[in-house]
Amino acid sequence: MSDIKDFQFCFEGMAHCGSLGVEWVLRKRSELWLQDVDFVCITDGQWLGNRKPCLSYGARGVCQFRIEVTTEGRDLHSGVHGGAVYEPMADLCWILDHLTDVTGKITIPGIDKLISPPNEKEQELFESLDFDIEEYQKSIGASELTGTSKVQLLTRIWRCPSLSIHGMEGGHSDGSCKRVIPSKAFANLSVHIVPNMTPDRVNNLIVNYLNMFWPKRRSPNSIKIYPQHCVYPWITKYSLPHFEAANRAIRHVYGVDADFTRQSRPIPAALILQHLTGGSVIVMPLNSRDDAPEVVNEKLQLRTYINGIKTIIAYLFELTSV
Amino acid sequence: MSDIKDFQFCFEGMAHCGSLGVEWVLRKRSELWLQDVDFVCITDGQWLGNRKPCLSYGARGVCQFRIEVTTEGRDLHSGVHGGAVYEPMADLCWILDHLTDVTGKITIPGIDKLISPPNEKEQELFESLDFDIEEYQKSIGASELTGTSKVQLLTRIWRCPSLSIHGMEGGHSDGSCKRVIPSKAFANLSVHIVPNMTPDRVNNLIVNYLNMFWPKRRSPNSIKIYPQHCVYPWITKYSLPHFEAANRAIRHVYGVDADFTRQSRPIPAALILQHLTGGSVIVMPLNSRDDAPEVVNEKLQLRTYINGIKTIIAYLFELTSV
Repeated sequence: MSDIKDFQFCFEGMAHCGSLGVEWVLRKRSELWLQDVDFVCITDGQWLGNRKPCLSYGARGVCQFRIEVTTEGRDLHSGVHGGAVYEPMADLCWILDHLTDVTGKITIPGIDKLISPPNEKEQELFESLDFDIEEYQKSIGASELTGTSKVQLLTRIWRCPSLSIHGMEGGHSDGSCKRVIPSKAFANLSVHIVPNMTPDRVNNLIVNYLNMFWPKRRSPNSIKIYPQHCVYPWITKYSLPHFEAANRAIRHVYGVDADFTRQSRPIPAALILQHLTGGSVIVMPLNSRDDAPEVVNEKLQLRTYINGIKTIIAYLFELTSV
Repeated sequence: MSDIKDFQFCFEGMAHCGSLGVEWVLRKRSELWLQDVDFVCITDGQWLGNRKPCLSYGARGVCQFRIEVTTEGRDLHSGVHGGAVYEPMADLCWILDHLTDVTGKITIPGIDKLISPPNEKEQELFESLDFDIEEYQKSIGASELTGTSKVQLLTRIWRCPSLSIHGMEGGHSDGSCKRVIPSKAFANLSVHIVPNMTPDRVNNLIVNYLNMFWPKRRSPNSIKIYPQHCVYPWITKYSLPHFEAANRAIRHVYGVDADFTRQSRPIPAALILQHLTGGSVIVMPLNSRDDAPEVVNEKLQLRTYINGIKTIIAYLFELTSV
């Protein structure tokens, strides 16, 4: 391993808050830390399944939003004023129902045009991956999925944007039976974005659409949309020698080739480090899907822990020949 | 006042919890308390405006509901699974958007047929009432109302049912930017009902409609509707001698005839006491609208307080000649 001159470690990519501050710190110390970096390996993300390791060459980004519908007035008692006024909660349900179809596909015109066109070669890759759609469905407890084939489903979570409503506020949400007409109603939502979408373009498109579409409701209430936290999508080429070296490392440890996958969830550090180093970035997840990273009962199995150590050592060894 | 033999006072009608227990207590003690009751006067509700007292001959009832949309599975991370699954929050917005139009009018087929047909005489009465629609609009801070004339608006809040969404739950409603796909989404709503609607008929109609309409969504998620607290609407004749006596009392104190109004909000005690005594029930509000009963900064003005005492004394005096 004499050819490898130096290692740098970054122990917290801060993905959960969009890596806020990470780029700033790295940029500030770039002369000290980021000179002549050839390879970057991020051990974030998770395998597609539980049996086979993967290497990731892409990740979706995210644009978060808060939508508000407000009256000029105050909260009212529905018993006294119900029927006389235009209610913000109903307005909010109406607008949210006009952003997606039942499968979560965004129905805002122009969104599809921002997406890089599907790639046949990648669809062939998806077909080859070790991913059992029934096993996936069972593991998340879904009675039905929006895609019926492996390729269709992976295309949806890796190559298509999706919109989710995370919560709604207004009035009370404590299960009590108070009969208020809330004067303000809020929704928190996010759009996971894919190459070549950029947060700027997506934000503009959604804000413009809402402002254009809202008058059709003919409600005197006001609607406002606040773009919030954003992360760019990330993509690189999985045919690079760096990927081949990492794949050889995985073959040493697991005896199989890695699956080349994307991650559905943003990994902002991948984009930041690719940008600041100009080096080849790879995402090498050490968690199987059942380890359930970042949710309740997250775990690291002994097998993936030991094999993870072995994989990193083998990876460093293989880098010497790239 | 020698003709009035006896008074009974009930100091808490418990309207806020649907008068739960009041009927039970009164029925249990009916031999002791409710023998030979000729007149019942309830000093609940509020005036239509701020200048002129009113006497009420009707009140809307209410049916409250909780709607749940649930997946079989668990909460998921939208970054990982967004696009692959059918999301309960979006389903809930869809169904809520199909219950009313923008003005809060219920669009469920069959609801209109439950309502007693409009009465020309009553519309003439509405026209004569001391109610300034612009003043009303200003007092609640609304930029627009669903009715443009006095009669139209009073018809909406007194003679038409209305549906309000009071709050929605699911995921988080704390304004944070967590990106969960909640596996369960809830809405609390109420329908204010008018004669001749009964809670049973309304509940059946809404539950059946939801079950019939839901499959159109083609979502694998489950919907359930839980009817909750209910109050019947109340109506009596305002041409009764009892109303005339109360009106004379008001004329003594205020120098004007009372307006005969309905109350938009349920007064369950009116129905219970009418039912248990068979006696003539009147609702005599002592609060002007600006007193804002039952909301933040509720007050009782000195004028309405003193005049209220005078009105009750005059009312008792006038009853002796009925």
